[in-house]
Amino acid sequence: MAEIGIIMGSDSDWPIVEPGWRQLQALGLSAEVLVASAHRSPEAVRDFVLGGEGRGLKVFIAAAGAAAHLPGVVASFTRRPVIGVPVSGSALKGLDALLSIVQMPPGIPVATVAIDGGQNAALLAASILALNDQALDRRLAEFRRVQAEGVRAKNESLQARLNG
Amino acid sequence: MAEIGIIMGSDSDWPIVEPGWRQLQALGLSAEVLVASAHRSPEAVRDFVLGGEGRGLKVFIAAAGAAAHLPGVVASFTRRPVIGVPVSGSALKGLDALLSIVQMPPGIPVATVAIDGGQNAALLAASILALNDQALDRRLAEFRRVQAEGVRAKNESLQARLNG
Amino acid sequence: MAEIGIIMGSDSDWPIVEPGWRQLQALGLSAEVLVASAHRSPEAVRDFVLGGEGRGLKVFIAAAGAAAHLPGVVASFTRRPVIGVPVSGSALKGLDALLSIVQMPPGIPVATVAIDGGQNAALLAASILALNDQALDRRLAEFRRVQAEGVRAKNESLQARLNG
Amino acid sequence: MAEIGIIMGSDSDWPIVEPGWRQLQALGLSAEVLVASAHRSPEAVRDFVLGGEGRGLKVFIAAAGAAAHLPGVVASFTRRPVIGVPVSGSALKGLDALLSIVQMPPGIPVATVAIDGGQNAALLAASILALNDQALDRRLAEFRRVQAEGVRAKNESLQARLNG
Amino acid sequence: MAEIGIIMGSDSDWPIVEPGWRQLQALGLSAEVLVASAHRSPEAVRDFVLGGEGRGLKVFIAAAGAAAHLPGVVASFTRRPVIGVPVSGSALKGLDALLSIVQMPPGIPVATVAIDGGQNAALLAASILALNDQALDRRLAEFRRVQAEGVRAKNESLQARLNG
Amino acid sequence: MAEIGIIMGSDSDWPIVEPGWRQLQALGLSAEVLVASAHRSPEAVRDFVLGGEGRGLKVFIAAAGAAAHLPGVVASFTRRPVIGVPVSGSALKGLDALLSIVQMPPGIPVATVAIDGGQNAALLAASILALNDQALDRRLAEFRRVQAEGVRAKNESLQARLNG
Amino acid sequence: MAEIGIIMGSDSDWPIVEPGWRQLQALGLSAEVLVASAHRSPEAVRDFVLGGEGRGLKVFIAAAGAAAHLPGVVASFTRRPVIGVPVSGSALKGLDALLSIVQMPPGIPVATVAIDGGQNAALLAASILALNDQALDRRLAEFRRVQAEGVRAKNESLQARLNG
Amino acid sequence: MAEIGIIMGSDSDWPIVEPGWRQLQALGLSAEVLVASAHRSPEAVRDFVLGGEGRGLKVFIAAAGAAAHLPGVVASFTRRPVIGVPVSGSALKGLDALLSIVQMPPGIPVATVAIDGGQNAALLAASILALNDQALDRRLAEFRRVQAEGVRAKNESLQARLNG
Repeated sequence: MAEIGIIMGSDSDWPIVEPGWRQLQALGLSAEVLVASAHRSPEAVRDFVLGGEGRGLKVFIAAAGAAAHLPGVVASFTRRPVIGVPVSGSALKGLDALLSIVQMPPGIPVATVAIDGGQNAALLAASILALNDQALDRRLAEFRRVQAEGVRAKNESLQARLNG
Repeated sequence: MAEIGIIMGSDSDWPIVEPGWRQLQALGLSAEVLVASAHRSPEAVRDFVLGGEGRGLKVFIAAAGAAAHLPGVVASFTRRPVIGVPVSGSALKGLDALLSIVQMPPGIPVATVAIDGGQNAALLAASILALNDQALDRRLAEFRRVQAEGVRAKNESLQARLNG
Repeated sequence: MAEIGIIMGSDSDWPIVEPGWRQLQALGLSAEVLVASAHRSPEAVRDFVLGGEGRGLKVFIAAAGAAAHLPGVVASFTRRPVIGVPVSGSALKGLDALLSIVQMPPGIPVATVAIDGGQNAALLAASILALNDQALDRRLAEFRRVQAEGVRAKNESLQARLNG
Repeated sequence: MAEIGIIMGSDSDWPIVEPGWRQLQALGLSAEVLVASAHRSPEAVRDFVLGGEGRGLKVFIAAAGAAAHLPGVVASFTRRPVIGVPVSGSALKGLDALLSIVQMPPGIPVATVAIDGGQNAALLAASILALNDQALDRRLAEFRRVQAEGVRAKNESLQARLNG
Repeated sequence: MAEIGIIMGSDSDWPIVEPGWRQLQALGLSAEVLVASAHRSPEAVRDFVLGGEGRGLKVFIAAAGAAAHLPGVVASFTRRPVIGVPVSGSALKGLDALLSIVQMPPGIPVATVAIDGGQNAALLAASILALNDQALDRRLAEFRRVQAEGVRAKNESLQARLNG
Repeated sequence: MAEIGIIMGSDSDWPIVEPGWRQLQALGLSAEVLVASAHRSPEAVRDFVLGGEGRGLKVFIAAAGAAAHLPGVVASFTRRPVIGVPVSGSALKGLDALLSIVQMPPGIPVATVAIDGGQNAALLAASILALNDQALDRRLAEFRRVQAEGVRAKNESLQARLNG
Repeated sequence: MAEIGIIMGSDSDWPIVEPGWRQLQALGLSAEVLVASAHRSPEAVRDFVLGGEGRGLKVFIAAAGAAAHLPGVVASFTRRPVIGVPVSGSALKGLDALLSIVQMPPGIPVATVAIDGGQNAALLAASILALNDQALDRRLAEFRRVQAEGVRAKNESLQARLNG
Repeated sequence: MAEIGIIMGSDSDWPIVEPGWRQLQALGLSAEVLVASAHRSPEAVRDFVLGGEGRGLKVFIAAAGAAAHLPGVVASFTRRPVIGVPVSGSALKGLDALLSIVQMPPGIPVATVAIDGGQNAALLAASILALNDQALDRRLAEFRRVQAEGVRAKNESLQARLNG
């Protein structure tokens, strides 16, 4: 059963969301995905969040660009953790989306990750769920170990190139 | 009967909204005023907008700071014109609020005025209503004439000081 | 008879203005269009605005980039609502145009939409005119319904792809 | 036993951190607090994070200004959720701290809240812990209810003033 | 007879303009001064510029804040050199005024000086007029000599303090 | 004999400078051109400016990108008018060059034009020289007339397309 | 004999420079100090740098605000390490000074420290000289130890307050 | 034996680092190079810095993009001079990396060069080492002479083109 709900404001955000979706799968987590707009289809957002809580969703990820209200609107309907992903597709390269998402007023937080940070949103969601799921926690530890190993491998490859 | 609905995200926005409210009164317009938050009391916002349309509100003014979602959220519930006022009270001096309000996605516009531009929001609302209200249009014309006269008077006062 | 006057500072702004022009047509509204520059042909701007009011123009849309003075200059000549569209074609990606348009001083508002927001300028103009045009208001309502439907369709398409 | 570890880069950050610390207490949560600098005392940071995991800390909150590396450095040592609070005390008003905290590279997320958002960091930490603590979840729900009530009260107070 | 025309958008800009006005006087130059707004009294601006050319004004200085259109509007009416002074009084500290003034489109330049750079506007105007006025050129040379002397004196004063 | 000295910090700035150089030629003005760097060949800059004054140069144009010190350095050596052109070739798209050029301290102004505004630098130089050259002033007037005509022609071409 | 030359563009920069000067003294280093302006007294800058090299100065520190050309101008005259300190006194709070100093073109570096970072400029200079001065290196090590100790003491003081 | 340690956060930074590496070689300096991440492999960074000091490394160069913590983390482990290179590969074009690197808190400086300034980092390192290496100092002097010559040659090439 899905524990994570992913909402994006437009299907054009999918290239940013997809790496996060794949990261969740790689960690053995399943997610519901929804395209819905805080402005063009606000009722769909509301229904998904309120209904999702009932279906057992524990963490929400919301991605949006420009006047990126979606994560804040999701957070207004639920007290579950909401992770916001600013998308860079606008003229201002995501600075607008970043400020729209992170500068939430006191009382309703959104956990904001980097511009276009879809994968990190997934890892943050996983770290939250891992607090109560030892198998997931071990998979996260393994992910980190492999990641550090990858840096080491890239270093060795560069050394070989420089000294080769 | 009120034709304009004014919503602000916090009563701390009142010093920005009040000049607009007084400007509306000076032009003979009456407004409903509401303190409600897109994030802390989203249902109150939704009820006010949907109900307001039924009560005959024709233009909405929404003021908010930081991650200023309120104008966009209002616009998601009504196809009446929505005027957004970015408020400067945050660390970023209103740049965050400006981008959060003005950078709306295609399909749902918000008519954005200057940071802390409460008076201009009122004048914009009046110019919209004046399209169908000749008496109001004459009061707007008179406002503009007096305003130009005020600039002239300040110029004369400066000339007197420089040449006095 | 046209109710909307569209001015752009340069014919290079047409790709931004055109979606708005088509949106107006789709809503059954007709517009006069003018290429004129606040700086290179200020008299043409002034004549169009003053003359346009006489010909019955009710709303003005002005698009410009960089030091985008055109919307403010239009607003200085008329008390009809003026909608400003910042164009992103400069080195600063439209941030200059946005600030030049939105930061109008007290007394003369410009209703600013997003950078490159030509379509939203048209929708905002339509929402203003719809206050006194029930047929147009119904077409706007239908536009919104179809738009929300489009989001739903894109969601279904994504679900099919993910589960297919 | 404390479940939350709070680190701040300097004791001058305490005015930003303290509202979060009080918010945690109000929700019945206890936290360890540490003043340590990612740059001036990196070993103290490392020891606190690695030791804290052993003592059962489940969520970390790190606040810092300017080149605000502390949250990212904490995240490099633990796979527990790390919440970053940018502090505005620099010449650039916290824009530097915000970008230093939120723009983490793929693989190591930091859950960033608003500039000076100490209270929201606490609420986010609580929402994470509440996923597995029903009593806390009820207190969070009550917090939200009271908060919405507070907005309503402020609205009534404004109505009284305007109509009084 | 005055050779320089100074226009400011509001008498609140006088504290920025006054150092320039005094600098002109110190260099033996006389200036006409006008308070007029590109938006609130556009005809007054146009009349001053067109009439001023007839009265022999050779250089214009225009100071304005926020959406600072005044220098560009002046330049649209004259081919005499126009110097623009961005004023910092807005929430965005003059960044808006700077971009509004300096980013003029090809064909109509404005010679922009620093934010709040009233004195430098005067010195620039003087350097232009000095091209054809040898006595003024000598006074400018003397100004520069005294200015360099002032730096030297401040250095000596600091040395005395450090070694005293 | 050349009256204008053009300096650029690098030959990579030529695509920005060239339109200005061609504009000067079209107005019948001749210019000396120099590639020299305020940082890599400071003596060449100093010699050109001091020598150029002796050879009769009346206006300097300096173009540079990034930490664009060249215009200010030129202005430190001469009291002739110095026009600065910020070049956009850096990661920050010319915002760095703009601020480096325009924010000169009191006492030494630089007349700054738009980012990449090579043509406008030439027009500003011409407007300065035209104060004492009636034939040039007539050519500038003709340039403006043709330019306004060009806008009109583009408008007619658009009208033909829309109504064709 | 002094090994470090400190230049500031104006004596108003002294409050930023003084902490660095005191830090150098605390580390047993002596410095020559000069007030001179890259724009108002360029020859004084040139003479100090060229002469200073002859007198044995090994590192230069240059502090300036706004269009902060001083560090780059110093670096154009010497191949000794030049440390630049952006000063925040302008309307743009030092962002202009930072970009003017750090964005040097390829070939002539300036070692830039934080806005208003006078103390860090001194520590950087000391770390450079310590490469060849073991006694200084030990004093730097002691400085770091005491500094870390200070963080620990502040932590203990906070613990006492929280638990007291 | 290598005197310089170069660390980059990712092998994708190599195109920025490589010009610096080649510059060092051209000046006869050898460097150790490491790919290691402040966040993904913090122990590798720590080991390299602490071990490098033991092996005789005298200057560190660290390049990173986005939340660029690497230079500051390096500086937290050593009192040797640390040079930071902001890399522009993010949505914000290196502004995030620049602020993350340069805005270090009092006590721990990082000598920051321009965005993507790999070559200048190398020249700065060389200027530091040249303080105690006369042969290197002569090579640096020769580099500067050739560089100035290159500017002169480009100027001559442009003159030939313009007059040819």
